[in-house]
Amino acid sequence: MTSTNEDKAKQLPPASGAWHIGLPAGDRNFFELSPDRPYIFEGGGVVHKPVVAYETWGTLDATASNAILLCHALTGDAHAYGTEGPGQPTPGWWNDFIGPGKPLDTDRHFIVCANVLGGCQGSSGPSSIDPVSGKRYGIDFPTLTVRDVVRSQRALGLSLGISKWLSVVGGSMGGMQALEWTTSFPSSVRSLVVIASTAAASAQQIAWSSAGRHAITDDPGWQLGQYYDSEPGEGPAVGLANARRIAFIHYRSDEEFNRRFDRFSNESLEPFRLDHRFDIESYLDYQALKMPWRFDANTYLLLNKMMDLHDVGRGRGGVEKALTRIESPALIMSVRTDFLYPRDQQMRIVDALKNQVHVEHVDIDSDNGHDGFLTEPEQTGEPMKEFINRVEKDSLT
Amino acid sequence: MTSTNEDKAKQLPPASGAWHIGLPAGDRNFFELSPDRPYIFEGGGVVHKPVVAYETWGTLDATASNAILLCHALTGDAHAYGTEGPGQPTPGWWNDFIGPGKPLDTDRHFIVCANVLGGCQGSSGPSSIDPVSGKRYGIDFPTLTVRDVVRSQRALGLSLGISKWLSVVGGSMGGMQALEWTTSFPSSVRSLVVIASTAAASAQQIAWSSAGRHAITDDPGWQLGQYYDSEPGEGPAVGLANARRIAFIHYRSDEEFNRRFDRFSNESLEPFRLDHRFDIESYLDYQALKMPWRFDANTYLLLNKMMDLHDVGRGRGGVEKALTRIESPALIMSVRTDFLYPRDQQMRIVDALKNQVHVEHVDIDSDNGHDGFLTEPEQTGEPMKEFINRVEKDSLT
Repeated sequence: MTSTNEDKAKQLPPASGAWHIGLPAGDRNFFELSPDRPYIFEGGGVVHKPVVAYETWGTLDATASNAILLCHALTGDAHAYGTEGPGQPTPGWWNDFIGPGKPLDTDRHFIVCANVLGGCQGSSGPSSIDPVSGKRYGIDFPTLTVRDVVRSQRALGLSLGISKWLSVVGGSMGGMQALEWTTSFPSSVRSLVVIASTAAASAQQIAWSSAGRHAITDDPGWQLGQYYDSEPGEGPAVGLANARRIAFIHYRSDEEFNRRFDRFSNESLEPFRLDHRFDIESYLDYQALKMPWRFDANTYLLLNKMMDLHDVGRGRGGVEKALTRIESPALIMSVRTDFLYPRDQQMRIVDALKNQVHVEHVDIDSDNGHDGFLTEPEQTGEPMKEFINRVEKDSLT
Repeated sequence: MTSTNEDKAKQLPPASGAWHIGLPAGDRNFFELSPDRPYIFEGGGVVHKPVVAYETWGTLDATASNAILLCHALTGDAHAYGTEGPGQPTPGWWNDFIGPGKPLDTDRHFIVCANVLGGCQGSSGPSSIDPVSGKRYGIDFPTLTVRDVVRSQRALGLSLGISKWLSVVGGSMGGMQALEWTTSFPSSVRSLVVIASTAAASAQQIAWSSAGRHAITDDPGWQLGQYYDSEPGEGPAVGLANARRIAFIHYRSDEEFNRRFDRFSNESLEPFRLDHRFDIESYLDYQALKMPWRFDANTYLLLNKMMDLHDVGRGRGGVEKALTRIESPALIMSVRTDFLYPRDQQMRIVDALKNQVHVEHVDIDSDNGHDGFLTEPEQTGEPMKEFINRVEKDSLT
């Protein structure tokens, strides 16, 4: 067998898996967030001419009363629904929840999902070119917060004619956005759905996030964030894969791993070899090594930091006080085996809301750990469908 | 301020933190495990003239009936009791449990603790020089198992005149050894104490172990294991520190981190900076960066693999069947917040033993997670003291 350099390059991960101008747009639309003036983040950082990539499904009704904002998790993007294709590295991440007759019903609802600011699938982020300097932002992209993301989504919604969302829905990092939405703009939201999320990152969550960041920044291929012009295989792919490996273990559960992989690939242990991989290791390698093809290491750093900084109580007298701002009915869900965002974090939200608004709590009986928010369309989708139906009928307010 | 190259080198971590010949022996004794013939491991690997470093406290009685074998955890060593000093990078890792009148009572017991084969604090391991090649073993040190370690400890005991231990005691990886001891040599053990351990590594434990191994082997300073001649700062210190960071999060608990660190170093978040560290991150950095000064990266790989391979049921018809070999009373302990070695792993042992021997189970109410086996001398020590006293009086058999 012979292989050309081109073939070899195809097997090596790109320096960045970010979408960039010049690639097919896929189903993306682009919203110019602040075309005429600098956009200032909560922390004081400034970006120029930021863009938010988004997708929509369904039709907005005449009174703009059927719009649902879906917020994605860390490595998600605007492509919540649809197929893989040119410019779309993955199929829709919530395909089982969206469509005709689904909980997010494309026959009845107008569903919007935007790649978060700072992301790498079309919205302005570290991999974008700063129009002022003409260079990639890299780690000079300003630190941003969930509030910055929510503010950008509000501007996007207003540009689409939506001043009040029927529901803001999200799991994990998406749930952080849903909570910030209803806390920052309570009268702009008729209901919220928060799955496997928290009102404030815990010390342990920050710790894990920190381990992932080190995996990236200690990879020499990271090059202090200036890896964008590197050849395939010479960027921070190993570090990003290692960060993903660490995270993926936390996204799943002991119960699931034992069910799926038990201990061995086969019963024979001879010869013992240090490089022998158990089935679970092969699976993790597979999951880890996919990441550099569709994600950007600096975005990973930025969004992990954003999650660490997440605290709905910041500057508002603490979490409980902040949550008193919420005026809309809430559906809060927990996954039984989620040890990354454990149930008590969701119960804290429920407890804070229960005397002021209609709040429902649902336990999802899944062994998929934190990723249970992605993998249980029936257990998660049915209560959500029912909840949103009742919100539409105003029977909960 | 000026600084010489020598000063600078002092601040940089060594390529390996292993003890080596030429350094002060400290309290170590050395046992030549197989001076006259090659020593063959369970997996078929061979080492020549292996040495086991060990320490003892107290005096062996005339009938050799008061000997307790203490088995250390992953980054432990033979120095379970005593002070830091020349050749001893750390104080005794179980100082609160050993001493006059303590559960392991130096006035009444003869306590032995050996650095595991494959270790880096005096026993033969990857950082040792292979007497055949004259070179460091590196990753050519054969893959070993807990059974290999136990067999070497048995030879050590016999050399000291001990054919039956009053008790074999260990937490975490030490508990694996205690279980293998009583399963491999049931008549050589009068009792066992197993804390926060398991009869077989789970898929999730293997997953975490794998993440730590990647942190090391993906560090260019690792140099395929041939880093021993590297200058300070040019070995795999960053990778070893990252492996430690990942592990340390699993050794503790959400509850402890939130109690100690909550979320912030201070309430002010301005200016947001990507390199801003939360308190928990500073603490993890401190813990992580200590490791390369006292440990060897290849030993870390080897012992993690040994723990992954741990399965008392291997070749014995499964865990439950293997545990039927145990003839001695057992004390099994769990830590409430241990999610690395969760309680059901210990209950599996209890359930397997309860119809055949006297078995006691104790829940340790600590928020220190897995490390609760190190940090709760009263809750752990008192039941252990009482248990061993009763074993001595033969009141449990």
